[in-house]
Amino acid sequence: MSTKQRILIVGGVAGGASCAARARRLSESAEIIMFDRGPYVSFANCGLPYYVGNVIKKEDNLLVATPELFQQRFNIDVRVHAEVVRIDCANHYVEVKNAATGRTNTEPYDALVLSPGANPIRPDLPGIDLPGIFSLRTIPDSRSIRQWIDQYQARHAVVVGAGYIGMEMIENLHLRGLKVTVVEKQGQVMPLLDAEMVAPVQETLKHKGVQLHLNESVNGFSKGPEHRLVLDLGSGRQLKADLVILCIGVRPETRLAREAGLEIGPSGGIRVDAQLRTSDPHIWAVGDAVEVHDVVTGEPAVIPLAGPANRQGRIAADVIMGRPSVFRGTQGTSVVGIMEQVVAFTGPSEKLLKGLDRWQQMEKIYLHPENHAGYYPGASPISLKLIFSKTDGRIVGAQAVGKAGVEKRIDVIAMAIQKQGTVFDLEEAELCYAPQFGSAKDALNHAGMIAANILRGDLVPAHWEDAARSDALMLDVREPDEFKRGRYDGALNLPLHQLRDRIDELPRDQEIWAYCYVGQRSYYAARILAQNGFQVKNISGGFKQFGQFQAARNNHKPEA
Amino acid sequence: MSTKQRILIVGGVAGGASCAARARRLSESAEIIMFDRGPYVSFANCGLPYYVGNVIKKEDNLLVATPELFQQRFNIDVRVHAEVVRIDCANHYVEVKNAATGRTNTEPYDALVLSPGANPIRPDLPGIDLPGIFSLRTIPDSRSIRQWIDQYQARHAVVVGAGYIGMEMIENLHLRGLKVTVVEKQGQVMPLLDAEMVAPVQETLKHKGVQLHLNESVNGFSKGPEHRLVLDLGSGRQLKADLVILCIGVRPETRLAREAGLEIGPSGGIRVDAQLRTSDPHIWAVGDAVEVHDVVTGEPAVIPLAGPANRQGRIAADVIMGRPSVFRGTQGTSVVGIMEQVVAFTGPSEKLLKGLDRWQQMEKIYLHPENHAGYYPGASPISLKLIFSKTDGRIVGAQAVGKAGVEKRIDVIAMAIQKQGTVFDLEEAELCYAPQFGSAKDALNHAGMIAANILRGDLVPAHWEDAARSDALMLDVREPDEFKRGRYDGALNLPLHQLRDRIDELPRDQEIWAYCYVGQRSYYAARILAQNGFQVKNISGGFKQFGQFQAARNNHKPEA
Repeated sequence: MSTKQRILIVGGVAGGASCAARARRLSESAEIIMFDRGPYVSFANCGLPYYVGNVIKKEDNLLVATPELFQQRFNIDVRVHAEVVRIDCANHYVEVKNAATGRTNTEPYDALVLSPGANPIRPDLPGIDLPGIFSLRTIPDSRSIRQWIDQYQARHAVVVGAGYIGMEMIENLHLRGLKVTVVEKQGQVMPLLDAEMVAPVQETLKHKGVQLHLNESVNGFSKGPEHRLVLDLGSGRQLKADLVILCIGVRPETRLAREAGLEIGPSGGIRVDAQLRTSDPHIWAVGDAVEVHDVVTGEPAVIPLAGPANRQGRIAADVIMGRPSVFRGTQGTSVVGIMEQVVAFTGPSEKLLKGLDRWQQMEKIYLHPENHAGYYPGASPISLKLIFSKTDGRIVGAQAVGKAGVEKRIDVIAMAIQKQGTVFDLEEAELCYAPQFGSAKDALNHAGMIAANILRGDLVPAHWEDAARSDALMLDVREPDEFKRGRYDGALNLPLHQLRDRIDELPRDQEIWAYCYVGQRSYYAARILAQNGFQVKNISGGFKQFGQFQAARNNHKPEA
Repeated sequence: MSTKQRILIVGGVAGGASCAARARRLSESAEIIMFDRGPYVSFANCGLPYYVGNVIKKEDNLLVATPELFQQRFNIDVRVHAEVVRIDCANHYVEVKNAATGRTNTEPYDALVLSPGANPIRPDLPGIDLPGIFSLRTIPDSRSIRQWIDQYQARHAVVVGAGYIGMEMIENLHLRGLKVTVVEKQGQVMPLLDAEMVAPVQETLKHKGVQLHLNESVNGFSKGPEHRLVLDLGSGRQLKADLVILCIGVRPETRLAREAGLEIGPSGGIRVDAQLRTSDPHIWAVGDAVEVHDVVTGEPAVIPLAGPANRQGRIAADVIMGRPSVFRGTQGTSVVGIMEQVVAFTGPSEKLLKGLDRWQQMEKIYLHPENHAGYYPGASPISLKLIFSKTDGRIVGAQAVGKAGVEKRIDVIAMAIQKQGTVFDLEEAELCYAPQFGSAKDALNHAGMIAANILRGDLVPAHWEDAARSDALMLDVREPDEFKRGRYDGALNLPLHQLRDRIDELPRDQEIWAYCYVGQRSYYAARILAQNGFQVKNISGGFKQFGQFQAARNNHKPEA
């Protein structure tokens, strides 16, 4: 396979560029041509929000590699402003349209790799094409946003959609000094995470002066005075803005594949096998346009992430060169920085698992450990949610929010999930510890211990969402001053250190749900009670978690 | 087993305290007594250097838990100033000496747990007992050092020994404004790592004005003027100091165990089985005093680390309560912060493996990736060394040095090692990526890719330590201006982008060793050359690694 073959690659970012470079490393003799309809290849699309925010100051910094570098270093023929408009699968050629001349020529291939990416969704709303409404996908997009902000000295932006890119745009527009308003259809920001996990992020946003309109949609746009825009919202409200950024997600760019008759998966991405081969054996597809399978749920999904795209490109090149490489699937590991908070996750969320009807085999825990030893100055809490299998302890997913040490914990869990690790593995993980970096019992050891306690039957967990329906006695084992400052309505206060002496005050014929601030003292209390014959559960994550739960519940009630 | 038994615990820090608390959670009925000969239990001994440095400002912050808290929360009877001086194994009791009264009483046990820790080594040198020569193990030790510094307005400290604690003491004394001189017997600081990996740390230390005396020993101490001390060094030199901190390692405290006839392992620690049971079935031992097995090498070792000590305490309690828990062993995961550098590692070093005669099955790579995407401001390099099995790719160990993102990578590798992961797993790890946190191809993906390339035969590595003995042509594929600024003596310069055109200038009858700055361009070059029939190797880590190699080699030549 590695003799003089002709490899065409459509799309020159992440997956395409990785594929091209890898193909060259495996074959000096292949002819490799990479097409991109835009002016650039191999640019840092994950940097675009930061270029808008002027954190990345020069456009040049976004260019990871130029066509010249591809030529010199890899002997790869890069053609920019060159759009592949048609694939002739039967005859193994593509038609390429030159954006400058408008002319079309044909290019034959032995192997064709599609890496077209995904398009920002632009809903068909009234006024959607008005100037000042932007999406963010390319360097020219970000340049236009910068120019608009400068030209009109923009002071107020509306970000529609609060996913990854939305969050990064909020941060960067805020950094530029703009007042930012967010319109999000769902009752939470970052809908890939569970609502209660992003409650602290929403608090931070509000605290920083970002206006959040959750459970809200946009009906249309109209022109306001001068350059300004008016948004008509689903609730009937109106918003005025100097500019609008649409961040309501992306859609795999499948037109070319579809027109060529390549199979499209149920999730809307180009269907590929584990070797990234499409339904045509001479055509591969990689990156945001393809349907992958979620390694944890096994379900097909479109998960637009740079890391997997790069690996897919590499694997497609391997396979084209006759190697047995396979793509193991995607677990969705992600991180977003937003206003000094870090949000990271890996694996499916609770709501995704519920949607797949897989929740009955799962258990979850919440904890709020510090990022490093509390006795060393500057420790900050991490809110961590761990989802695991009730039957064998396999780690399924994790979500974490905090100021520091957040993505580190998710990375370790990502590796544990990759290696089919269990909560017992977390329990005995041996991680770096010095007081400025971690704890002798790291956040992840704690998570493992709590989960393992549940699986061993030493701890029966309860969750706040079930509290209202429960007849249990709510037992607050914190100190009276903590209890006074805030409590679950109707809870009984009996501080942990008095519990042994006053145990007879508690009912033996009623289930008891114990809680404290984060769940540790109540665990001790639950152990005392269980050993004394009481029916007791420990409310996971404690009163701190109750705050997150309540905030999420309130947001999920659409306002009247 | 969990009926009213009497559990005695000797030593109330890390392992002992964890054991006591866990035992209580498993049994409300057991009688649990914890003895410590010092004034405190459960203090943060890893924080002591930072208390000396006044980073941790209050002594109280070092107290994780007080005897009162143990009593109230856990119904554990803590006895401080109480030294267990003898074990009567046959009759199941210990003799306890009260430090205040000097009186001894006996305490019977059903289960006895030894957690005596390890003692700082204090060699029997002339003058070793002079005032102003300190070790650091307890809160009173750190208090004495602080007082000495204040009382004599100390300006110059000598730290003897540059292991973990030595490094932390250097940092903290420097922070207090003292000039610090280090005397280290070996030719490098942090002897648990390989010498070339700590070369950057040594540079930093020198840059910050710390005087390093490597390959140097102390023959004795004498009194100088006023409070001052004079150190006589093995080289014949003398050093003057206001104070001396001995950080030359610790020795398991085994006197009690030894006198009781308990077995001591070949490494000098108390021998325990996987359930932390000593040679006496009623006596357990945990923490820095026990011999563990290294999970990677399988060898017995004494590895004094807080994380494993805590887990051991927990497991011993489990076992005492009749549970089947086992300790999986230790992999030595560690981190040290030193002058804005972070040094972290997990698994054995190259020199340890060589000492065990295990190196022939191993391969290693060096790389110098950035902690996050280079296009995002503030990226800083990490020097990473990965050791793996040549035969199956199993990850064996890793060492990393850099300013940020260091211990995160080691934590992920620690989990990978725990789960028997391979370099192929690193290659396809899915880690958190946003430009301020990582890269689409993370440092660890890079490490995995390089190592996997080697195992697949796509890349033949060479190492600088073999360069002098090699007849190979050294080929520098960097740009001429880079070459001019520094090169390997006798290397030929042929920049990568000219290689295809000028390939016939290279010899076909001589092995070629390619290098660039960090090893990436030379990998591309090696692929071109290999496919064109040349015999070529890629020098791992490039010219940057050469700098570290040379620095280490120079340090390991004792000065004349």
